[in-house]
Amino acid sequence: MSVRVTVWSENHHERHEPAIAAIYPDGIHGTIAAALAGEPTFAVRTATQDQPEQGLGGDLLDETDVLLWWGHKVQGEVDDRHVETVRRRVSEGMGFVALHSALNAKPFRAVVGTTGRSFGFRHGGRELVWTATAGHPIAHGIPNPVIVPDSEMYCEPFDVGQVDETVFISGFDGGEVFRSGLTFRRGRGKVFYFGPGHEEYPIYHDPTIQQILRNVVHWVTPEAPPTLVIPSAPQDRDKPVGWFGGSSR
Amino acid sequence: MSVRVTVWSENHHERHEPAIAAIYPDGIHGTIAAALAGEPTFAVRTATQDQPEQGLGGDLLDETDVLLWWGHKVQGEVDDRHVETVRRRVSEGMGFVALHSALNAKPFRAVVGTTGRSFGFRHGGRELVWTATAGHPIAHGIPNPVIVPDSEMYCEPFDVGQVDETVFISGFDGGEVFRSGLTFRRGRGKVFYFGPGHEEYPIYHDPTIQQILRNVVHWVTPEAPPTLVIPSAPQDRDKPVGWFGGSSR
Amino acid sequence: MSVRVTVWSENHHERHEPAIAAIYPDGIHGTIAAALAGEPTFAVRTATQDQPEQGLGGDLLDETDVLLWWGHKVQGEVDDRHVETVRRRVSEGMGFVALHSALNAKPFRAVVGTTGRSFGFRHGGRELVWTATAGHPIAHGIPNPVIVPDSEMYCEPFDVGQVDETVFISGFDGGEVFRSGLTFRRGRGKVFYFGPGHEEYPIYHDPTIQQILRNVVHWVTPEAPPTLVIPSAPQDRDKPVGWFGGSSR
Amino acid sequence: MSVRVTVWSENHHERHEPAIAAIYPDGIHGTIAAALAGEPTFAVRTATQDQPEQGLGGDLLDETDVLLWWGHKVQGEVDDRHVETVRRRVSEGMGFVALHSALNAKPFRAVVGTTGRSFGFRHGGRELVWTATAGHPIAHGIPNPVIVPDSEMYCEPFDVGQVDETVFISGFDGGEVFRSGLTFRRGRGKVFYFGPGHEEYPIYHDPTIQQILRNVVHWVTPEAPPTLVIPSAPQDRDKPVGWFGGSSR
Repeated sequence: MSVRVTVWSENHHERHEPAIAAIYPDGIHGTIAAALAGEPTFAVRTATQDQPEQGLGGDLLDETDVLLWWGHKVQGEVDDRHVETVRRRVSEGMGFVALHSALNAKPFRAVVGTTGRSFGFRHGGRELVWTATAGHPIAHGIPNPVIVPDSEMYCEPFDVGQVDETVFISGFDGGEVFRSGLTFRRGRGKVFYFGPGHEEYPIYHDPTIQQILRNVVHWVTPEAPPTLVIPSAPQDRDKPVGWFGGSSR
Repeated sequence: MSVRVTVWSENHHERHEPAIAAIYPDGIHGTIAAALAGEPTFAVRTATQDQPEQGLGGDLLDETDVLLWWGHKVQGEVDDRHVETVRRRVSEGMGFVALHSALNAKPFRAVVGTTGRSFGFRHGGRELVWTATAGHPIAHGIPNPVIVPDSEMYCEPFDVGQVDETVFISGFDGGEVFRSGLTFRRGRGKVFYFGPGHEEYPIYHDPTIQQILRNVVHWVTPEAPPTLVIPSAPQDRDKPVGWFGGSSR
Repeated sequence: MSVRVTVWSENHHERHEPAIAAIYPDGIHGTIAAALAGEPTFAVRTATQDQPEQGLGGDLLDETDVLLWWGHKVQGEVDDRHVETVRRRVSEGMGFVALHSALNAKPFRAVVGTTGRSFGFRHGGRELVWTATAGHPIAHGIPNPVIVPDSEMYCEPFDVGQVDETVFISGFDGGEVFRSGLTFRRGRGKVFYFGPGHEEYPIYHDPTIQQILRNVVHWVTPEAPPTLVIPSAPQDRDKPVGWFGGSSR
Repeated sequence: MSVRVTVWSENHHERHEPAIAAIYPDGIHGTIAAALAGEPTFAVRTATQDQPEQGLGGDLLDETDVLLWWGHKVQGEVDDRHVETVRRRVSEGMGFVALHSALNAKPFRAVVGTTGRSFGFRHGGRELVWTATAGHPIAHGIPNPVIVPDSEMYCEPFDVGQVDETVFISGFDGGEVFRSGLTFRRGRGKVFYFGPGHEEYPIYHDPTIQQILRNVVHWVTPEAPPTLVIPSAPQDRDKPVGWFGGSSR
């Protein structure tokens, strides 16, 4: 069965800044979607903030197994209803991947529970992406380190609170460090934050970065279709609670 | 310096149901506040949902070091602005304690990132509260188990996702189990969920439960006044990032 | 490629106590191995403490992807060399499953880093095994709760320190509770502790328990053959550290 | 009541290499002990591997609340009995701090459960120690970053498996990164790994590094004297398990 992947992006820089449109003529979402489409088990769609209902109308999120999210300039304008839907879907099992400046995106903050603020930032300069958790599926086949010739730096302290696994840590020219690959579990859903991917540089065209994104989508894919939810109907006090002979899913 | 503690409750059952008003004539918030006031370093206030601005007007949350939260019947009506403020304050360091049915409270869900749903519930019957993490400060001086003669059961699976420490686990008459004392870290703030405390039973009058609540407030109290935040001003690209000679707080 | 599974057991009760031999005529290891052999991708072997070199001679552990371990009466006599090998293999990626009274087994203690002591125990009585983490692959297709008619109780506090995921929690007739399904990560290896499985009762003959064990073996199976290790050769100080173009595995 | 602190070191480089003796004339242990002795609540002792019974005879560890451990050249010769005692004491509540090259020390490996291997190393060059968890008590009053002008680099992947909190991450001249301040919980004990501290450089003479070490000792200090252990006596099957009215400590 296919994994239903939705790549969401604000699609703002690409439409308003020619220099960035030149790097991502198909949009950041289009470049990422093309990279993922190489995987035959992924059924990839895109959605953007400039579309009606910010691209999230109808049952799109309910029909999404893995959601990738890129936002930056206008992410404060994302509708709170969508934020709440993302959080509900993650709890039900949807995988969620926040990309680069989406550390400040409302749904990432809603799912992680913190501000997502980085201590600072700087445009330009080399980023080395080191694997901190050797053998993690997301790092499978990935060189150590990955060299990103030009990147936007974010740095520690990164306000994400309690993390599950630290898969990647980046080092920058100024000696700064940043946890650039982090896993979180929320309800039945797996969450990943991935640092590299600034709009001014062709980072999402890099084959190694694309391989990481494919690994990430595999990793956050729910084990089973995330459609069943925990019942919360009142219980009869004369009967034991539980689905005897039933399933916990 | 005093720890500024705010006990917030919806104050709904107590005002509308005589049987419950008989158990908690001062309100659930009043009973809890009195229990905490025994600790000389705590400066305790109460606030309730039936007050103007749901009790959270002015700078109350910005002047709170530890917030205890009890909600049930009308917690769907809590204003989203308050929810966002609680989340911001926790990130800055405010301790947050969700009590009993507040597993479904908006701010608990916002901070933890999941639905907080319990698999089921049942009114009445004994609850045994076992210490799972011996030696944890919250369990200091607490018998193992604590016996709650009559309680409302919640049970597993409890949709809280990734937890930090499992301090208490309760066992119920029907053989059900529930993680009834859980810690979470979010940003600089410590978060605790505590299960026992249903409005139909005088649980918050129990001296052992009161001792646990005092231990909890001590434990979630921020190490330093949670007033400073991480800077996020743009950085000069010619200067190294960081507060050389400064402080990380 | 097959998953190379080794079921190790002390094989002591079965050889010395007729009542137990009647329940497990093929040994506990034999019953578990037969349950796992139903999975076509598992290549299952057994090894026992009463064999030469305690069953762990030659390259057995180096050729094992998943090790299940049952010990009780004579587990204090397990050779420390074997313990060290288990710990090394887990760090390299071998899955390790400690069963029931193996909470006190030397290799479990070595891998987890604590005493593994339970607060108490009792023979007989019903155990209800509740799924705490709904949607976890180990709980896939498992009723909630699983009913074990007769079991040996262990109870909280369970000295395992910091755990990763709490998959199962059991409730017992006396109201006691016990975290009976726990995951840990150590280096590249996944570790699982599973509570049910006392020698006096036919628990390992139960089809649901057998399904859990198969789920567990799938879950702890390393993502890739756990044969490569992290290099630790001295680095040339004039060259950057890292496998540029190489792999982190 | 005083915190009984023991600073253990192998005391090998200092006795055999004049250049290192010139940096640490009182031994690495002596320099650290002097730095800690400034704190009036600490009662500080030292012990070294070149002493009888490797400095760990008698009841020293049973009378230690916090153990700091520095080892490198001869740490493979540490007696396994001592290793086992350290692990037991940590489970009972003793704080344990592994320093620099003690990532390969037997007791650190025993407590953490992994190999502790770093991906590589390099002598010399600047280390910037960044606070990753702002507001953590160990980072209290510490500049971000701390600048260590000359250090020995260790780098990721660091084989420590599952960590609790990532307090510090270091960046090095070659762009490498290393989680240089990590917390672990094992049983009742708190464990900290701290990276900076190579014998060739006067790092332990640095006032900021000394302040971090004092913060660390405060943080790993057990909440109560770690003398009581969990009972494991057989339970009477006709009586409920537990210390009704007793204490979980």
